[in-house]
Amino acid sequence: MLGAAQTLIELHGCSALGMAEICRTAGVPKGSFYYFFSSKEELALAVLDEHWSALRSGWNRNLRSDAPPLQRLRKLFEATEADRRAGQQSCGTVSGCLFGNLTLEMSNQTEAIRERLQQIFDAQVDMVDAVVGEARDRGEATVADTHEAARSVVAQLEGQVLFAKLYNNTQSLDALWGNCLALLGATTPDRSV
Amino acid sequence: MLGAAQTLIELHGCSALGMAEICRTAGVPKGSFYYFFSSKEELALAVLDEHWSALRSGWNRNLRSDAPPLQRLRKLFEATEADRRAGQQSCGTVSGCLFGNLTLEMSNQTEAIRERLQQIFDAQVDMVDAVVGEARDRGEATVADTHEAARSVVAQLEGQVLFAKLYNNTQSLDALWGNCLALLGATTPDRSV
Repeated sequence: MLGAAQTLIELHGCSALGMAEICRTAGVPKGSFYYFFSSKEELALAVLDEHWSALRSGWNRNLRSDAPPLQRLRKLFEATEADRRAGQQSCGTVSGCLFGNLTLEMSNQTEAIRERLQQIFDAQVDMVDAVVGEARDRGEATVADTHEAARSVVAQLEGQVLFAKLYNNTQSLDALWGNCLALLGATTPDRSV
Repeated sequence: MLGAAQTLIELHGCSALGMAEICRTAGVPKGSFYYFFSSKEELALAVLDEHWSALRSGWNRNLRSDAPPLQRLRKLFEATEADRRAGQQSCGTVSGCLFGNLTLEMSNQTEAIRERLQQIFDAQVDMVDAVVGEARDRGEATVADTHEAARSVVAQLEGQVLFAKLYNNTQSLDALWGNCLALLGATTPDRSV
């Protein structure tokens, strides 16, 4: 049911989502929705948690490895691009970021969803921030405010994923790594590495 | 009617938008929708055109002035932040970018809206690109690919506006100018200016 709801939200957004459609896609009897969830908001929160739980594993794997800090960020961008490319190959279109989508669509409507999305983006920024701090300690990044820099890196990621979706083209994601180095004031001599 | 539709789209997204609600908000008789528009898609396109037409005037004013190129970009970000702040003061919440919202919500549903949004973002990137090219000609930016850099600047703008909306806080937009200088490889000695 969560999978069905996530697929439908990615395709059509949340507001347009009907409970009958969710049940049909999930293959459960129409009308059984309230057996599982007390409201569409509760379902949306469960979809967010499920999606972040899966995504966070990948972020942890890439950002908490033994590689040098900047290389860990690079792995994160490569994984993001690979995910979008795989999604495009399997369903024909590049999907946006579920969190970005729901922020733009829902965050002015329900406080519970806004708070959950804030927590998720806070967690992403904190994870990047920790790596940026390590890079700075090694003299590989020169940025003054590591938290602001981390937020800018995540903002750049959201913006480029939006373009990848709009143009149905993952190529714009190639710029993420070089832009990240620029935003961090990285001291790496060769940015193309 | 366009104003009513834009307000409702900013609040609730496009999919959830009902024609009766548009007519009620616009103060026109329910059922007169099809006198004005042949479909909701046609209305959405008209809202996009109207919004871009207004926004483009501001972009032109800021990006085609006599000021040095990088200062013109700075003016654009200051205007973006001032707009969001004014919106927050008048309606309590920071609104997202209408184009970004509709990209995430609608671009996988209707080709006409996807194409129009592509044209609008293409135009924004071209306008920034022209200024970046001037800055590079003056030796004030070092970036190799001015078009890719311009797209990254617009992506950063979209991402930070998304955060401003999510956290209902325009402060994240303060980072736009410094980030723009970093993304362009600007040679300005003092980035805090």
